[in-house]
Amino acid sequence: MPEFIPGIKKIKYEGPDSRNVLAFRHYNADEIIMGKKMKDHLRFAVAYWHTLRGSGADPFGSQTMCRPWDDGSDSIANAERRLRANFEFLQKLGVEYYCFHDRDIAPEGKTLPQSNKNLGAIVKIARQLQNNTGIKLLWGTANLFSHPRYMCGASTNPDAHVFAYAAAQVKKAMEVTLELGGENYVFWGGREGYQTLLNTDMKRELDHLARFLSMAHNYKKEIGFKGALLIEPKPKEPMRHQYDFDAATVIGFLKGHGLDKGFKLNIEANHATLAGHTFEHDLQTASDAGMLGSIDANTGDLLLGWDTDQFPMDIKSCTLAMLVVLNQGGIGAGGLNFDAKVRRESITIEDLFTAHIGGMDAFALGLKNAARIITEGSLKKMVKDRYQSWESGIGAAIESGKASFVELEKWALAHGEPTPRSGNQEKFESMLNSRII
Amino acid sequence: MPEFIPGIKKIKYEGPDSRNVLAFRHYNADEIIMGKKMKDHLRFAVAYWHTLRGSGADPFGSQTMCRPWDDGSDSIANAERRLRANFEFLQKLGVEYYCFHDRDIAPEGKTLPQSNKNLGAIVKIARQLQNNTGIKLLWGTANLFSHPRYMCGASTNPDAHVFAYAAAQVKKAMEVTLELGGENYVFWGGREGYQTLLNTDMKRELDHLARFLSMAHNYKKEIGFKGALLIEPKPKEPMRHQYDFDAATVIGFLKGHGLDKGFKLNIEANHATLAGHTFEHDLQTASDAGMLGSIDANTGDLLLGWDTDQFPMDIKSCTLAMLVVLNQGGIGAGGLNFDAKVRRESITIEDLFTAHIGGMDAFALGLKNAARIITEGSLKKMVKDRYQSWESGIGAAIESGKASFVELEKWALAHGEPTPRSGNQEKFESMLNSRII
Amino acid sequence: MPEFIPGIKKIKYEGPDSRNVLAFRHYNADEIIMGKKMKDHLRFAVAYWHTLRGSGADPFGSQTMCRPWDDGSDSIANAERRLRANFEFLQKLGVEYYCFHDRDIAPEGKTLPQSNKNLGAIVKIARQLQNNTGIKLLWGTANLFSHPRYMCGASTNPDAHVFAYAAAQVKKAMEVTLELGGENYVFWGGREGYQTLLNTDMKRELDHLARFLSMAHNYKKEIGFKGALLIEPKPKEPMRHQYDFDAATVIGFLKGHGLDKGFKLNIEANHATLAGHTFEHDLQTASDAGMLGSIDANTGDLLLGWDTDQFPMDIKSCTLAMLVVLNQGGIGAGGLNFDAKVRRESITIEDLFTAHIGGMDAFALGLKNAARIITEGSLKKMVKDRYQSWESGIGAAIESGKASFVELEKWALAHGEPTPRSGNQEKFESMLNSRII
Amino acid sequence: MPEFIPGIKKIKYEGPDSRNVLAFRHYNADEIIMGKKMKDHLRFAVAYWHTLRGSGADPFGSQTMCRPWDDGSDSIANAERRLRANFEFLQKLGVEYYCFHDRDIAPEGKTLPQSNKNLGAIVKIARQLQNNTGIKLLWGTANLFSHPRYMCGASTNPDAHVFAYAAAQVKKAMEVTLELGGENYVFWGGREGYQTLLNTDMKRELDHLARFLSMAHNYKKEIGFKGALLIEPKPKEPMRHQYDFDAATVIGFLKGHGLDKGFKLNIEANHATLAGHTFEHDLQTASDAGMLGSIDANTGDLLLGWDTDQFPMDIKSCTLAMLVVLNQGGIGAGGLNFDAKVRRESITIEDLFTAHIGGMDAFALGLKNAARIITEGSLKKMVKDRYQSWESGIGAAIESGKASFVELEKWALAHGEPTPRSGNQEKFESMLNSRII
Repeated sequence: MPEFIPGIKKIKYEGPDSRNVLAFRHYNADEIIMGKKMKDHLRFAVAYWHTLRGSGADPFGSQTMCRPWDDGSDSIANAERRLRANFEFLQKLGVEYYCFHDRDIAPEGKTLPQSNKNLGAIVKIARQLQNNTGIKLLWGTANLFSHPRYMCGASTNPDAHVFAYAAAQVKKAMEVTLELGGENYVFWGGREGYQTLLNTDMKRELDHLARFLSMAHNYKKEIGFKGALLIEPKPKEPMRHQYDFDAATVIGFLKGHGLDKGFKLNIEANHATLAGHTFEHDLQTASDAGMLGSIDANTGDLLLGWDTDQFPMDIKSCTLAMLVVLNQGGIGAGGLNFDAKVRRESITIEDLFTAHIGGMDAFALGLKNAARIITEGSLKKMVKDRYQSWESGIGAAIESGKASFVELEKWALAHGEPTPRSGNQEKFESMLNSRII
Repeated sequence: MPEFIPGIKKIKYEGPDSRNVLAFRHYNADEIIMGKKMKDHLRFAVAYWHTLRGSGADPFGSQTMCRPWDDGSDSIANAERRLRANFEFLQKLGVEYYCFHDRDIAPEGKTLPQSNKNLGAIVKIARQLQNNTGIKLLWGTANLFSHPRYMCGASTNPDAHVFAYAAAQVKKAMEVTLELGGENYVFWGGREGYQTLLNTDMKRELDHLARFLSMAHNYKKEIGFKGALLIEPKPKEPMRHQYDFDAATVIGFLKGHGLDKGFKLNIEANHATLAGHTFEHDLQTASDAGMLGSIDANTGDLLLGWDTDQFPMDIKSCTLAMLVVLNQGGIGAGGLNFDAKVRRESITIEDLFTAHIGGMDAFALGLKNAARIITEGSLKKMVKDRYQSWESGIGAAIESGKASFVELEKWALAHGEPTPRSGNQEKFESMLNSRII
Repeated sequence: MPEFIPGIKKIKYEGPDSRNVLAFRHYNADEIIMGKKMKDHLRFAVAYWHTLRGSGADPFGSQTMCRPWDDGSDSIANAERRLRANFEFLQKLGVEYYCFHDRDIAPEGKTLPQSNKNLGAIVKIARQLQNNTGIKLLWGTANLFSHPRYMCGASTNPDAHVFAYAAAQVKKAMEVTLELGGENYVFWGGREGYQTLLNTDMKRELDHLARFLSMAHNYKKEIGFKGALLIEPKPKEPMRHQYDFDAATVIGFLKGHGLDKGFKLNIEANHATLAGHTFEHDLQTASDAGMLGSIDANTGDLLLGWDTDQFPMDIKSCTLAMLVVLNQGGIGAGGLNFDAKVRRESITIEDLFTAHIGGMDAFALGLKNAARIITEGSLKKMVKDRYQSWESGIGAAIESGKASFVELEKWALAHGEPTPRSGNQEKFESMLNSRII
Repeated sequence: MPEFIPGIKKIKYEGPDSRNVLAFRHYNADEIIMGKKMKDHLRFAVAYWHTLRGSGADPFGSQTMCRPWDDGSDSIANAERRLRANFEFLQKLGVEYYCFHDRDIAPEGKTLPQSNKNLGAIVKIARQLQNNTGIKLLWGTANLFSHPRYMCGASTNPDAHVFAYAAAQVKKAMEVTLELGGENYVFWGGREGYQTLLNTDMKRELDHLARFLSMAHNYKKEIGFKGALLIEPKPKEPMRHQYDFDAATVIGFLKGHGLDKGFKLNIEANHATLAGHTFEHDLQTASDAGMLGSIDANTGDLLLGWDTDQFPMDIKSCTLAMLVVLNQGGIGAGGLNFDAKVRRESITIEDLFTAHIGGMDAFALGLKNAARIITEGSLKKMVKDRYQSWESGIGAAIESGKASFVELEKWALAHGEPTPRSGNQEKFESMLNSRII
């Protein structure tokens, strides 16, 4: 096997004072944080579509990045070279997981059987490379949005033929994920939504979506796939409205269709912010429902209105995200997948490394900060103090379901005006700052 | 009873060619549209808080509007004058409904008993005025956001004391709504949300919110209130995050807590757009769930990021809203409440009339357009055609639950690539334009 | 010459009651409005890049539209077929102008001389087709954003080599525009901006931009090009920040560099709204500076944060735009260029027609409405009345420069508190509605 | 003089490891950074309107904060108590500057002479307190937006009477600022803009604005005020459109009216972000024009659409801001004014301290980071390297004005395709992170 990235050696941890952009300053894979190795807390994954298939093309311009191993063709041989480069990249980066869409790793054929055959061929090699390297598949998924057949949706397409085609494609993608030992399977409904309500029967489309997910869940059991099925919310783009708008919408939809036991959520930072939420809000919403399954670790530009999928570089945001994760006892079989792409102008392979290292360091520092905050405990205690009135007396009566409006009126009349108490927001913010390095 | 608005007589319908801004050009109350009077389709209501209590104050400046009947005091006498002016305004405008918060119509006292007493005194007069004029209460509600005690929420306050106080206040407001024959009772959670997650236990607060709504529902049955309980979504403002974010979030929350049978939604245009949705999207979402109970008819400025509560003046938007209403068989016991305020600079009483007339005409024209579109049927037929594949064959099999991934794969392999079909968005848009006058 | 679009005949005017989506309901080219033919008021143009080169590809998916005449190759023969199809499309649509980027009409070669040769070959044919059909070039421009060489800007690129290359390309594009009798030449700075300030010397880049425009202006005089040079503002996308942010920014930049006499503006609706302005605001800003040269007639979705380039379908917006145009005495040698693309799902040629017809009808109706409003005069009179205090007395003294703070203080002390006067916004809005059909 | 804030002593510097929220962790006033004391770099100021006059009221609710020294009345005695509390607060906080609007410090009277008299009385006390404490006035300004007379603008009001009144008010405010040794005078055009273009003559209003500023500049010279006149941009709120939209708009406006020599800018973080810019973008834009005069140091919530005026707590943002300041050689006679308010729920006086301390620490750390980055020099060097092609050869020829399109075409033909070079955004971001503590 030739070396695809000859100029760069395995990235090492050099500590916070290092000025080497090709070294970790905070991510120290085997360092123990709250009783667990950093790598087991963070479970980083590389996103195949961006890192191996990203070309720098955007709606206003063509490809800017040409990788030496990629001849631009749709051949199996080219697909294999990309795959091998992927494993080399991950080994050098020190990341143990990757994620892919079916069509990222193997070319779509002229027919479904041909596509399946292509996929099968590549999966065989992937399996071997996984065995050789110890690199694992965090999750697989099917691309149901790039091909023109899906232009009006996959499971929510007005044409039942497309629904059936999508079902066949997901079936295969689930099989492949199982075959590669994937720990989860993700649904991002790239075109599940509408461009205009004028031509859309929204209720019917949503019923079809539920039907599709139900079949997927059945098929998971049928083939013995033990991983989680994850839905990834996004509010808009490419469709004007996407049905899986945000965490709350998806949770409500799943509950409304009796599907909440079978699915969890994969929360992406940039998708949350496009919906008007902070990253930590959508993480907390999913976590509170017991449905935070995995994370797409990226960031957007909050002053722009589209998904920029940038590498996470904000320490405070990473700290808040890791607080949610640690508070729920870890991300389980999920992980932090870098659904992030280098900017169109960052055309070198070194940029690919720099970007991932920067993101890994940001989350590593976030993890350390979050662990410090939890261990120290003062912020949590301040929150607990705010809610102390619920631990006994009328608060406890309300929570236990023993109070009614009539009783509460009596109580309120007897106790008069409540005493105002400061929310202390700036104190919380300032304390957070003092615990972030 | 003195005349409060001596300069303006009852507003008349003068037809589309009228240039009189104090006449209706489209709203002709008794005109029959699709078998029903316009007034019974539209069920317009005036919002007491804006129209009778709006002062023109904003975060950057003080009161600009001084009504001759309002001495600015918190006296019962002043409250009565406002109430009488309200009925005169509605009679002259030809609107049959109004809506209020408890604290709009009667001053808050120093204690809850005093507040209740004030409210009782005014309600007695309101009842009499309703009887005299035939004007009715579309819905009542409690203001749980203006008083400092509610600064950190009412039912989601960290202090159980505030929850109890809010319960007592809502109890009274529900009684008063019943007493006045109110056809609905609304919950807008003005401060039910958070300013920062740092100091917030979101899960606990949401559980308290569900508990509160459950008590309200029980109390409704206890006192024999037959109207609907309506929740009004809003995504943000005043709180950074409001729990009743949008229609989908509220529906999901209600279903998740087993409350969906007891509540419907009151959808406001400007709240929907602040959440990133079109007005018609949130109406359709509520309607599809069988939960569209009433409408707050206003509009926002889509290029601004706060709730401007402007009077609806966009004919296309009103048409699309009325299409949802007509398609679900009418708004039932709900109505179109003008939760809209004249601009701070529109300081005359004539402005109040002009604004309401403009909004009523916009919705009247929207109603006529929607009726025309439905009667003509071509747009609906085009939508139906898009989904024809679901009426038989594999589509019907999927919808009836008879298909699985395995069967769909077989079918897809047998049938090959779907035939692409245009979404025809511009055709739909153009046809809509040709049916709007 | 074979017929490229055999199924569709020349689009006719059938009047407002027509239900034929392949006919005009409002656009009646030779109808006289305020003393001028509609076609001479509106001067519609088709945008070559969207209509002839649009493929339906977006960041999440590949081409959906396959025109029968387009084999997808970069050959001159294919370019010629597209060009011929363009002229047939315009003839059938009844539009007299088109606009292009150099690289839209002819393929980029491996070298600049090859690209210039390709362009020359196609321009020769275009000239002939223009002569045969009477169709004219509203404006030409150079594409300085799609090729990877321009990824960090053209005239604002950190590399002077790219600046020089861009200069050579614009030089040729200006020559070609002159050769084809183009009535204007446009600069849209697709990549003139930055992605991050961290790696950017903004001041230096802006100075280079001014230098570039100055050279263009010199070259215009050198070759005897009589048309206007137009700058098209856009605030963001593809770059995070675009230097030509909005009309006010561009006007200020031009004035600051002494270039305002040599340039006008091409205002695009969707670009204005991305900057947080209404379409009419940026039109008025340019018009007030005497710099409104031409218009990109499209619309965006105000609830989305990217440039959707939709066909204009909102009658009120078109009315307000045409009011600005009529109030400044017409668009001059500019026009209304449909910088709009059919949705990715609108894959038929009929969709191309329907979309343009819908947009033309919207602006035709907007023109008629604007003419009616101006002829009737009441809205203008109401505005004039608001400012009457400036026509004499202290107002006139201020405007003529005769007053100072000292004198105004004296006057203010003598005259006391001003009398508040309503802004009557809802009255204006309602009157506007009554004058829009 | 009684002590107004008995519970809190002078805030001390305790160093980064302190867990005391009533101590500085980073702000060490006399510590030398790059040859200058921190306090002289930062020149912090307290905003009187928020800190002394903020009540917690918002559009949805009434006052939440009651200071013990403030009886809520409009009396001079109350105004004096507030003023004395202000000086005590600043002394305890260790801040040397404050800023005010005329109406913040003294009550508006029934007439202008009465208002002026009230102001004069308070200014006399302020002067004495300044002398006693060494606390200085960073800038003064006039409130031309709160009183109803200004509802449609001050200098851009349709009524010339209001213009004259505003002139008289600003005249007095400038005199008072001079009297108190104010180092700058600020114009924030709170209502200088429009709510709807329909009722507005924008060109005329902008001409009036220029006239007003010109008079102010003349009056400054007349009275011998040596400080800078500063304009503070804001894009919207309270008006739908504000004329001083952003830095670029204001600079262009000033240049277009020949006023750019007489004015500088006061850039506010939250105003920049409401305009779609980063804080550092608007700072850099002003600085590049030589017009960055002072800073309103706050932050907004980028996911909300209104001015939240929060205390700055983001270290990266403060670092980038201080980079602009240090790179231009300091803020001069300007400063960092905390135009920030504690949240409505932060009702204690301790919250006022915590918030200011948090903001001061954030900017102190930002200053240290910026100094470290500049001293180390590697980021600046990387930027310089990107632009090296402009230092000689064709780049230098272009910059010196010696090149034309004809020459550049020759050069480009001779030199062929430019070599692509990475923008390295992630490397820049990662290096920045490694230099921020």
